[in-house]
Amino acid sequence: MAVTKLLSDAEVEKIPVAKAVFDDIRATRKSDFVNNFWRGLANDPALLKRTWDQVKVVMATESAIDPLTKEMIYIAVSTANGCSYCVHSHTAAARAKGLTDAQHGELASIIGLAGQTNHLVTAMQIPVDPEFEVK
Amino acid sequence: MAVTKLLSDAEVEKIPVAKAVFDDIRATRKSDFVNNFWRGLANDPALLKRTWDQVKVVMATESAIDPLTKEMIYIAVSTANGCSYCVHSHTAAARAKGLTDAQHGELASIIGLAGQTNHLVTAMQIPVDPEFEVK
Amino acid sequence: MAVTKLLSDAEVEKIPVAKAVFDDIRATRKSDFVNNFWRGLANDPALLKRTWDQVKVVMATESAIDPLTKEMIYIAVSTANGCSYCVHSHTAAARAKGLTDAQHGELASIIGLAGQTNHLVTAMQIPVDPEFEVK
Amino acid sequence: MAVTKLLSDAEVEKIPVAKAVFDDIRATRKSDFVNNFWRGLANDPALLKRTWDQVKVVMATESAIDPLTKEMIYIAVSTANGCSYCVHSHTAAARAKGLTDAQHGELASIIGLAGQTNHLVTAMQIPVDPEFEVK
Amino acid sequence: MAVTKLLSDAEVEKIPVAKAVFDDIRATRKSDFVNNFWRGLANDPALLKRTWDQVKVVMATESAIDPLTKEMIYIAVSTANGCSYCVHSHTAAARAKGLTDAQHGELASIIGLAGQTNHLVTAMQIPVDPEFEVK
Amino acid sequence: MAVTKLLSDAEVEKIPVAKAVFDDIRATRKSDFVNNFWRGLANDPALLKRTWDQVKVVMATESAIDPLTKEMIYIAVSTANGCSYCVHSHTAAARAKGLTDAQHGELASIIGLAGQTNHLVTAMQIPVDPEFEVK
Repeated sequence: MAVTKLLSDAEVEKIPVAKAVFDDIRATRKSDFVNNFWRGLANDPALLKRTWDQVKVVMATESAIDPLTKEMIYIAVSTANGCSYCVHSHTAAARAKGLTDAQHGELASIIGLAGQTNHLVTAMQIPVDPEFEVK
Repeated sequence: MAVTKLLSDAEVEKIPVAKAVFDDIRATRKSDFVNNFWRGLANDPALLKRTWDQVKVVMATESAIDPLTKEMIYIAVSTANGCSYCVHSHTAAARAKGLTDAQHGELASIIGLAGQTNHLVTAMQIPVDPEFEVK
Repeated sequence: MAVTKLLSDAEVEKIPVAKAVFDDIRATRKSDFVNNFWRGLANDPALLKRTWDQVKVVMATESAIDPLTKEMIYIAVSTANGCSYCVHSHTAAARAKGLTDAQHGELASIIGLAGQTNHLVTAMQIPVDPEFEVK
Repeated sequence: MAVTKLLSDAEVEKIPVAKAVFDDIRATRKSDFVNNFWRGLANDPALLKRTWDQVKVVMATESAIDPLTKEMIYIAVSTANGCSYCVHSHTAAARAKGLTDAQHGELASIIGLAGQTNHLVTAMQIPVDPEFEVK
Repeated sequence: MAVTKLLSDAEVEKIPVAKAVFDDIRATRKSDFVNNFWRGLANDPALLKRTWDQVKVVMATESAIDPLTKEMIYIAVSTANGCSYCVHSHTAAARAKGLTDAQHGELASIIGLAGQTNHLVTAMQIPVDPEFEVK
Repeated sequence: MAVTKLLSDAEVEKIPVAKAVFDDIRATRKSDFVNNFWRGLANDPALLKRTWDQVKVVMATESAIDPLTKEMIYIAVSTANGCSYCVHSHTAAARAKGLTDAQHGELASIIGLAGQTNHLVTAMQIPVDPEFEVK
């Protein structure tokens, strides 16, 4: 561990707000496994609850973007931000939602290409074409 | 303009390698419009050609990820990297490929949530769960 | 270790400029412990001295921002920059200066929220309100 | 404007969820001014509401970190993430909460120093001292 | 290992496109050692080939910037992006091309200073001087 | 202008520490032009002096890395950090020190390639080869 304790199930059991979130995570995901992110957040039960509520609304409900695409977008952001934990957890989530090897390779290709053109644009300081502006 | 000149069509006309790329961009996109990114790259025709060849292969061909999803992934990376030009150009591209208002709002939601949890994970220095490792 | 050697006390002993900085670190902090950052910098004594002189002036002297707040600001920057070492060392420093569990949870909340709204603003490319400009 | 429309008061008036958030922003801040960030988010009323609810809880309530320190932490994250809009809006907020010129200069000094040592640590790949780990 | 398998020589042997790239890496570098980056990319042979082709053109050919300077620029970008693997591999490459201890210390100094002034500029939101614009 | 005032020569004239730094910038650069960065820093004379002292030592003195290479490294960091002002000012400085069009194109190529491989490495979470570790 690093700068915060990861709470065990026994420790979470004693914090009602955290316990309720852990129960909901398990029920929503139909799995007993609760990953370290939530165990770290459990040190601040209100933050844990706010974060889970958001994840549930944004990632888990019916919506205009399908679940696998959501995970690929999440991996893309996490990669650009250099969050190793997040790349691991969301790649696992994407795999669980059907990400194939071919899609994973393509996802890496797109992320890599975007990383390259982002850097080229910034190195050259390209101004935005008026055609791209929303009026 | 900023740190490089943006080459006009007349200037590109005199550089055979750049001219060929511009012709291919126009043919591939079925549009006469060539945006500033390519006009900046045209100062280095070899870089222009390498970049376009990659973009064409990664973004424009038949593949395991659909074209609109590719653009959303591109926007996600560009947002996390803070590339204003790239967010503009790829949001325009996504719109042209059918991005709806509902999808755009959700895309922003996912990107924002990922930004938040990326920061939370890093602030707490959460260690990767062994369950997420590929053996 | 990684791409530079971490100099031991015995090695630092032989480099007068580095030795003087290590002595001052120990005297200033009233502790014999000198962390790895300084042991890496000691490979370039002039860089070591310039860096310590700055840290001492900015972080250690009487000023308009209190010492604990300074450490929280340092953690905030280090988190956004994804510097694991820096999050570790400055969280330890903040703890030593009295950071409570409640404050640590709130600090993470603010950093996470800022990460989220930073990403939302960039995804939507919100223009600066004229009201925010300094005249 | 850029990649999303900024909704006017007249447009917001027609969206009940957005209208309620705008009313609450005005009541909470005791000011009629609603800045562009919220006008962009109003395109997705649910996202607007989720974001405002969080900002209100994290930034506006009684807590273990004082309001001015919260804004300085927000500025620190926004600077490291290169979010120009966010640096503008939160510096204005900090000024409104009493940030002095001396504190602003010091804040910049700390952010700059953190930026420097973050880069030095990464360039040298300094390993975390065991003393900094939470057991 | 983490989110992708690292292919062994025996596995690469069975993928003609990947095998050809590995052969070329070994011939170009006059060494039998093929580092993990290429073993990860080998999961997507087309991506492997595109990436190697670019690296070979940009880094390995005669050009206007000398090989050691190229590696220092690569380290600078990788440091700012927080890519630990890349800092390791390109520092090793720079050492192999003659990077001295004095140059390494100076490289870190420049990277650290740039990190600092980048943060100061963003914290203060300094506008670009017209003198710096290319007409 | 943005979140800090840019001090005019007349205003700087009244602040002895700032005046001395401005005089030294002009003498060192043999030019009357003082760019906005220093005019913003002048609001905190001590920060101005510390920053200039460092820039002078790191960038302006005889050393193991030549002046043009230093500027290219500075541009590389500034690009990866997305600092538009810094890319502008250091590209102008590099031009003044002899950067050719061919070198500028190559510099962009290297920065872009590094951006790409940094993203690929992070997306795949490639572990560091033991061969790259310093013992």
